Amino acid sequence: MSATRYTYLGPAGTFTEAALRTLPEAGTRELVPLSSVPAVLDAVRAGQAAGAFVAVENSVEGAVTATSDELVNGTPLMIYREVLLPISFALLVRPGTSMADIKTVTSHPVAQAQVRRWLAANLPDAQWESAASNADGARLVQEGRYDAAVAGVFAAPLYKLDVLADEIHDAESPTTRFILVGRPGRVSSATGFDKTSMVVWLPDDHPGALLELLQEFAVRGINLMRIESRPTGEGMGNYCFLIDCEGHLSERRVSEALMGLRRICPQVRFLGSYPRADHGAPAPLRPGTSEQDFADAADWLSRCLDGRGEL
Amino acid sequence: MSATRYTYLGPAGTFTEAALRTLPEAGTRELVPLSSVPAVLDAVRAGQAAGAFVAVENSVEGAVTATSDELVNGTPLMIYREVLLPISFALLVRPGTSMADIKTVTSHPVAQAQVRRWLAANLPDAQWESAASNADGARLVQEGRYDAAVAGVFAAPLYKLDVLADEIHDAESPTTRFILVGRPGRVSSATGFDKTSMVVWLPDDHPGALLELLQEFAVRGINLMRIESRPTGEGMGNYCFLIDCEGHLSERRVSEALMGLRRICPQVRFLGSYPRADHGAPAPLRPGTSEQDFADAADWLSRCLDGRGEL
Amino acid sequence: MSATRYTYLGPAGTFTEAALRTLPEAGTRELVPLSSVPAVLDAVRAGQAAGAFVAVENSVEGAVTATSDELVNGTPLMIYREVLLPISFALLVRPGTSMADIKTVTSHPVAQAQVRRWLAANLPDAQWESAASNADGARLVQEGRYDAAVAGVFAAPLYKLDVLADEIHDAESPTTRFILVGRPGRVSSATGFDKTSMVVWLPDDHPGALLELLQEFAVRGINLMRIESRPTGEGMGNYCFLIDCEGHLSERRVSEALMGLRRICPQVRFLGSYPRADHGAPAPLRPGTSEQDFADAADWLSRCLDGRGEL
Amino acid sequence: MSATRYTYLGPAGTFTEAALRTLPEAGTRELVPLSSVPAVLDAVRAGQAAGAFVAVENSVEGAVTATSDELVNGTPLMIYREVLLPISFALLVRPGTSMADIKTVTSHPVAQAQVRRWLAANLPDAQWESAASNADGARLVQEGRYDAAVAGVFAAPLYKLDVLADEIHDAESPTTRFILVGRPGRVSSATGFDKTSMVVWLPDDHPGALLELLQEFAVRGINLMRIESRPTGEGMGNYCFLIDCEGHLSERRVSEALMGLRRICPQVRFLGSYPRADHGAPAPLRPGTSEQDFADAADWLSRCLDGRGEL
Repeated sequence: MSATRYTYLGPAGTFTEAALRTLPEAGTRELVPLSSVPAVLDAVRAGQAAGAFVAVENSVEGAVTATSDELVNGTPLMIYREVLLPISFALLVRPGTSMADIKTVTSHPVAQAQVRRWLAANLPDAQWESAASNADGARLVQEGRYDAAVAGVFAAPLYKLDVLADEIHDAESPTTRFILVGRPGRVSSATGFDKTSMVVWLPDDHPGALLELLQEFAVRGINLMRIESRPTGEGMGNYCFLIDCEGHLSERRVSEALMGLRRICPQVRFLGSYPRADHGAPAPLRPGTSEQDFADAADWLSRCLDGRGEL
Repeated sequence: MSATRYTYLGPAGTFTEAALRTLPEAGTRELVPLSSVPAVLDAVRAGQAAGAFVAVENSVEGAVTATSDELVNGTPLMIYREVLLPISFALLVRPGTSMADIKTVTSHPVAQAQVRRWLAANLPDAQWESAASNADGARLVQEGRYDAAVAGVFAAPLYKLDVLADEIHDAESPTTRFILVGRPGRVSSATGFDKTSMVVWLPDDHPGALLELLQEFAVRGINLMRIESRPTGEGMGNYCFLIDCEGHLSERRVSEALMGLRRICPQVRFLGSYPRADHGAPAPLRPGTSEQDFADAADWLSRCLDGRGEL
Repeated sequence: MSATRYTYLGPAGTFTEAALRTLPEAGTRELVPLSSVPAVLDAVRAGQAAGAFVAVENSVEGAVTATSDELVNGTPLMIYREVLLPISFALLVRPGTSMADIKTVTSHPVAQAQVRRWLAANLPDAQWESAASNADGARLVQEGRYDAAVAGVFAAPLYKLDVLADEIHDAESPTTRFILVGRPGRVSSATGFDKTSMVVWLPDDHPGALLELLQEFAVRGINLMRIESRPTGEGMGNYCFLIDCEGHLSERRVSEALMGLRRICPQVRFLGSYPRADHGAPAPLRPGTSEQDFADAADWLSRCLDGRGEL
Repeated sequence: MSATRYTYLGPAGTFTEAALRTLPEAGTRELVPLSSVPAVLDAVRAGQAAGAFVAVENSVEGAVTATSDELVNGTPLMIYREVLLPISFALLVRPGTSMADIKTVTSHPVAQAQVRRWLAANLPDAQWESAASNADGARLVQEGRYDAAVAGVFAAPLYKLDVLADEIHDAESPTTRFILVGRPGRVSSATGFDKTSMVVWLPDDHPGALLELLQEFAVRGINLMRIESRPTGEGMGNYCFLIDCEGHLSERRVSEALMGLRRICPQVRFLGSYPRADHGAPAPLRPGTSEQDFADAADWLSRCLDGRGEL
């Protein structure tokens, strides 16, 4: 039944599935892998699934633009949950390759920077070549162009490669952020540690609009967590922005800021308020921007209208 | 009876009384002149009068600080009306002085600038000396230090001087702004052409607070009409600000801005929303800041909370 | 000779003279009291004195507008020094009055707030009446309207009153700030603890100009110390602003900000950079706004233009 | 010889080569296709080529992140030229496919939106399926999953497909922006119609830094043309920004803004000032931000330091 079905970007056995299974309800859902981000999300749009689970960004590779574009265009969707999953870098080779066979290694340059010390220690004589992405590097290994690729272990089955060494990154793991997306519905209650996502389109003839838009957040003490530009499809130089900010739509500082965006921008698409997956304390609020400060100010205003502002 | 009594800064026969008499209800009120701004306002505070009428600023002399300090300190008051009255410059002399007798003329330097052509034509040989204020110049004429003073005609009776020539300013008249003040009460309805007055105290340890405060207005497209600093009495370098802005407290852009001030500032004193006395069209609103824009954004926000933001 | 003459606002024996005598060079100058602020400053303009010494603001009474207007209008002047002098509140009476004779006391309301505890302890039965200013209160005592005035001791000789009790303020003394003004000349070197004064006129048709102007300071991390509005004389609602900010014109953050004002505003009058009279450490600079940070950034820019930005 | 060699992202025969050939000097250069963006740029870094030519963004697909990451990371490079080339959408099929054979069509959803009317008129019964990118759609056609792909004609040879119909987009063509990159060198002269590119890293512990950074541009009246966020590789939530703004580093408004960024940000990488490829008039400057305004303000400042600010 669609009410218990979640689609996700397949194939089965990847890190996406592993991330999805961290959701408490995953055990009672039918988890259906599909082959493209649009297909995963269209299943929700069409009512064939209650939720769709896709990657939205990686701390090394950046935004998953296929996901961004689906959130921006077409029938609106809403984000209900996010999951952060650390991704280990591994050394991937064609089956049968041993360390001694490796003369060339490829990866995205950012990944190379993160495994430099491991490579120097373990493959001091191998030559490194850059690839457009880690996945592309894995593909080039599959095609025989290079001997080994540095990539996430999840890439191994996709390109029929073996994991010769895992956890080879010098420092902290790169992380991928996934979201659970559904049809728009009532926003769930604030947990006190939430984020809010939206897409905004800037007015045409207004060069300072991006600054004004950021000021709607700043004046209310709301920190931005992420801003991603995407072309609107209306010609070079026209962008919309996917924005994640701290806080929940039911908080007055957030709702006031979003109403401000709505007044400035020709279009704003609210993408949901949902619990943050990063643990630890929220950033301290700027003085005067707590929910209680907003409530107190509203009470004071009511009293002012009645001539009792100073009581 | 106090309900029908208005106090004003006397003596009778000055421009203040003339300004007060422009109010429609003046004919049915008992108009009581008192000798100081504090006395005029304390009569209202004590319930001995329903309204108090005092000057608040002059387009040449600037703020009437006695009025400002009364609005800032002590039992709160509210402004219900404002009146603008053009003040003519006149040439004041001791009784018996003729044009031919005038060897010296005094006034505030700003006033001198406004009558320069008249003086050159009519008193080409008289020497001009600057005074600390026009009233002070009139006093110095009374004391015999100078032969003539350039001042408002209302100053003549105060200093027992005669008006030798009136309307002697080269260009436009200077203007005085008066306010009708009462005990705090329910704010009357917006007329569509209103202003709002307040006093704000800045937080102690926050150098950028004045800028933040102005941004609360700017982000909502509200023009400031006047800002006056006054010492708080807590040591050199500590100021509060009397601010007049466009709009009425019942408009959402104004109420949101004032709530913003209330959250930033340790103290905000609302001084009233009342009809503007200057005629002509209000300044055009910045796009996205009309009352309708605010109402539409609030509707949209409600729909977002229900998952219907795009309907 | 004019080169060794300083004029000041007289009469002799007031706090202004006391403040002037705190300047190291005062002992070798001819100190000439004059009867009005314009006269004091015009002596400098006319080359009859090398310096003019006048009060510019008081921590209780606010700005001395006669001084402000002279700095704003007429032949330009420059500020070279400032002096802060604490002013004691005293109880002034007509000669022969004793404590037991005092039934009424008057003063400006702000002064009353500062001596409330002393009055409660020493004159529990006397009735307090507010005056427009402390000086005006003293005048009303001279005229016999009240029995005692709370005012600065310097007011006693002016109004032929006696000091019945001195230092009667409950907390800290009020302070007056004086400035030494001269004809415009080369700005002296920075001391590391300076302030800069200026007058700015806002563009006519630009409601957000005050905010833009403050942003020229904020973006460069410069704290404002004082902002005072004065009417321009061109009709109600038109103001110029006297601004004091931290720092010295020879510091790049300050010179860049002033050039920014100059580009925005139809007129900017530079009034001088001079050592601050308040002791203690300057406010900590915002990161990235020290003189060294500006110099480093300029070096980097030069390297960028040569293609060596990253060296 | 390297001095006459330009590398570009191959293979030969694509739109990249066509764009490169629009450069006047292309006829006298050895044009060398290489197989990845890193390889193209590393040839310049290694001194094996004088210039490297790569796509940087597309008006439909967005940023070419491989190019962005090369500009951000590794040995610094500089941009010397940009080229805009309109890209036609075409209908790509496996050799031998006719219109009548097409039951399924795929593409990126944004592309689908741009050819909707053409598809409705020419393939009314074909089913459309979304692909992660147009290139990916072409690959899926090559693999036999779909019958036809909507993509740029340049994709046809890459996936061994035929162009069955060209110029099928309903409205304006999508455009790709290419850049000519070289080793850092002296910035060429301003043409009066330039842009400036840079990468900025935000300070760690400073939530409002993005806003401050945009204010460095806004306060000097500089319009932003593009802002793209990329992960820094230092963990989820850490981004740097590639920014294109109007103007040339030799203009004072631009150099002042970049020095401002340099002071705020732990790292700024200047990527070059070069002529804009879009034709038409530059956006009108905000009053007070022209080169002449900056020069006048600097002159005034020099006079102020000498006491001649008002001359």
